[in-house]
Amino acid sequence: MEFNRITEADVRSIRQIVGDGAVLEDPAAVAPYGRDETEDLAFMPEVVVIPENVEQVSALLHYCQERRIPVTPRGAGTGLSGAALPVYGGVLLSMKRFNRILDIDLDNLQATAEPGVITQHLIDAAAAQGLYYPVDPSSKGSCFLGGNVAHGSGGPRVVKYGTIRQYVLNLEVVLPGGEVIWTGANTLKYASGYDLTQLMIGSEGTLAVITKIVVRLVPLPAHQVVLLASFKTNEMACAAVSAVFRAGLTPSALEFMERRGMDWVREYNDLPLELSADQQAFLLIELDGDNMDLLYADCERLNTVLEAAGCADVLLADTAAQKEELWRIRRTMPESVKSNSVYKEEDTVVPRAALPSLISGIKEIGRTYGFDSVCYGHAGDGNLHVNIIRGNMSEAAWKEKLPAGIAEVFRLTVSLGGTISGEHGIGWVQKTYMPLRYGDIHMNLLRGIKKAFDPHGILNPGKIFDDAAGTAQQ
Amino acid sequence: MEFNRITEADVRSIRQIVGDGAVLEDPAAVAPYGRDETEDLAFMPEVVVIPENVEQVSALLHYCQERRIPVTPRGAGTGLSGAALPVYGGVLLSMKRFNRILDIDLDNLQATAEPGVITQHLIDAAAAQGLYYPVDPSSKGSCFLGGNVAHGSGGPRVVKYGTIRQYVLNLEVVLPGGEVIWTGANTLKYASGYDLTQLMIGSEGTLAVITKIVVRLVPLPAHQVVLLASFKTNEMACAAVSAVFRAGLTPSALEFMERRGMDWVREYNDLPLELSADQQAFLLIELDGDNMDLLYADCERLNTVLEAAGCADVLLADTAAQKEELWRIRRTMPESVKSNSVYKEEDTVVPRAALPSLISGIKEIGRTYGFDSVCYGHAGDGNLHVNIIRGNMSEAAWKEKLPAGIAEVFRLTVSLGGTISGEHGIGWVQKTYMPLRYGDIHMNLLRGIKKAFDPHGILNPGKIFDDAAGTAQQ
Repeated sequence: MEFNRITEADVRSIRQIVGDGAVLEDPAAVAPYGRDETEDLAFMPEVVVIPENVEQVSALLHYCQERRIPVTPRGAGTGLSGAALPVYGGVLLSMKRFNRILDIDLDNLQATAEPGVITQHLIDAAAAQGLYYPVDPSSKGSCFLGGNVAHGSGGPRVVKYGTIRQYVLNLEVVLPGGEVIWTGANTLKYASGYDLTQLMIGSEGTLAVITKIVVRLVPLPAHQVVLLASFKTNEMACAAVSAVFRAGLTPSALEFMERRGMDWVREYNDLPLELSADQQAFLLIELDGDNMDLLYADCERLNTVLEAAGCADVLLADTAAQKEELWRIRRTMPESVKSNSVYKEEDTVVPRAALPSLISGIKEIGRTYGFDSVCYGHAGDGNLHVNIIRGNMSEAAWKEKLPAGIAEVFRLTVSLGGTISGEHGIGWVQKTYMPLRYGDIHMNLLRGIKKAFDPHGILNPGKIFDDAAGTAQQ
Repeated sequence: MEFNRITEADVRSIRQIVGDGAVLEDPAAVAPYGRDETEDLAFMPEVVVIPENVEQVSALLHYCQERRIPVTPRGAGTGLSGAALPVYGGVLLSMKRFNRILDIDLDNLQATAEPGVITQHLIDAAAAQGLYYPVDPSSKGSCFLGGNVAHGSGGPRVVKYGTIRQYVLNLEVVLPGGEVIWTGANTLKYASGYDLTQLMIGSEGTLAVITKIVVRLVPLPAHQVVLLASFKTNEMACAAVSAVFRAGLTPSALEFMERRGMDWVREYNDLPLELSADQQAFLLIELDGDNMDLLYADCERLNTVLEAAGCADVLLADTAAQKEELWRIRRTMPESVKSNSVYKEEDTVVPRAALPSLISGIKEIGRTYGFDSVCYGHAGDGNLHVNIIRGNMSEAAWKEKLPAGIAEVFRLTVSLGGTISGEHGIGWVQKTYMPLRYGDIHMNLLRGIKKAFDPHGILNPGKIFDDAAGTAQQ
């Protein structure tokens, strides 16, 4: 389908819907909305619209559908797949004014919030009531709940608590024609026809615009134990991961980091952490619970498993400050890698016992295709973030040769039973790799679902699959 | 859409696809496949087909789509919404020969099974390896995994462990045209486009036929404590439910039963359990974990909460036999009710703190509309099964007046933030109530999704929503 460019008359109409102060046209004001955290990509919207209530979103979408103007919803812009980039121009719909936590329901252990709430704010509001919202991606201090839902977000606690799919109960959404519906019910169980709530999760803003989110909360665990285990090789560390679960332990986090990432974090954060030459790979492990005796007993079992897996050294965080320090290493790894080099991040995920094969295969592919990588991620879930470092690769190698190497990484991932993305989504940059895992039949089912929600294809076109004939303009 | 009746030529073709022994035409042999556990309903298929491999399912569906013959997939026939009833005749596709557990993967804590595996068999196979598959509907001894997936099954352990949605990782399915795909990947996380695995769960056989199921398993808890708490009124028992969770406790089961159901179970099972006049409502509560000291400590906290909620008496099961006895009361309640009277079962679900209003409202509606009910269910999830007893209601009252009363029950459920079904599904008997909660926009989205999967509408027509112009034949 072809889209219309936005005219001056369109801008006047949009200003009438949302008010003058909610429309940005000036290139300098618009520019930040043309980027997210995905590599160095930039696509400029024609206008930025920042509504403040569901009626405005409804009227805006209705108008844009009538006029065949593409609309790209945007949360905090922390995404890593380019899903929030307005690749066909049109309206960039910023949800940042939807920033209220509407209710913490202590009788039902539920919260209702708007999509522009920063994830950490909901975590804090729940904690203040002794409750836990355990969906905490690394960007939790800046990312929005709406973006988390749209991407099916994970984070380190998935390994014990599950992804955001296990927490979202119900969503208020605006369909591309402007209709407002709740997708389900505020209930812990739902067997009332196809589950539209689950379908919205991970749909990357291509089906509807989320305007309210109801999540369940769980009791806040009283204690955490955090430790850093080091290994001589990546493969040994990765092999230890499934051994931990086979032993019946369920950590609340189990993160893998390789040495290079650790070195860069130490420089970036100016950390005093001393490492010896045989500490080449690390597992950050957290156990949580309400009873310290039980936690210490689990720690002992964990130590036994780690030792049997060839762990060289275990550093147990004694104080709250030490725990925070260990977590800061992991959480600042993305930005410390970014500060060193332009990079491409691939979000591979496999059954967890396949991790050793995945990481050694990735390094082998790197040698063949001439790229270097820093790997880290949620090893307990089999989810490894592969950061391919530009370093001093030539423009030609980076733009033309590298995609073949990345395709090789995904072929390996798929051959190990995995898929193209575990938690970052497909968006703009991964969609070319979807055919490595999914055939035309699967992709056409996705397109058929899209058509049922968005018959004119105005919502976030060009994401997950090719669905628009217009020209993407970088 | 209109369907074709099955001709003799069709039967010959179908016999060629699946073999002579896999096709039943004799009315006596076909009859059992025309009923499930839903009330006293019966719809006869034209033929029953019992394939044994995915190639046969694929060829059969392809043939039936070409010939516009409706196909109704069937698991064990334990459903309570009529979803497995062939309301338009055609082919009844029994999956009972798909009965193998293909793999218990100890490295990844996953299992792969066929859809005709009895749920209890998977639970047992996992337990033999020290693992837990906690999705155990009351019919676990006879229901099939495939039916569980198709209905988004729950059961008593949902309250701690989640529904089947939290366990299914990946599905092999056959689309109505005969194409075979895997819906996702065998990974704990998935952010690779719309989640077709989740969409299949609860789709009641209307989108595709499930042929393989990959589930995750969790560590088997070492110990359970089971107790029966009694209360003077239904409302007091229901109010105690949310108090338990507000206190930070997460039982592994929290079931509500009212006195009448308890009396019928005692008769049905010839149980010696003595009850006094002020024991009018019961909560069956299970706590599980690996440490007995911790479990006893939780039990003490639980007792304090129950006492504060006005609990009259707590019976703690001391031995394995006593635990089993308490569970048998709850598990045999459906059959003991059924043995007393024809009944209609409604599967109401609300946010759990609304349970007291739900149960008193249901009784009030019963008085107004002249029906009696026995209520029990998964109170920890806010999920109450309302068994409306025919008793000596006239045929006219049962068939004509009762639906208005049931509609009133669902209006109440929806007004309390709930929905039409928590775990039994919509199927054939609840679909008339869907508009009480879902508007045309929502229902048309469901129809649009159906069309993307099943453009000719051959798969389980007449379920969840009206989608076929042919005549349903009872």
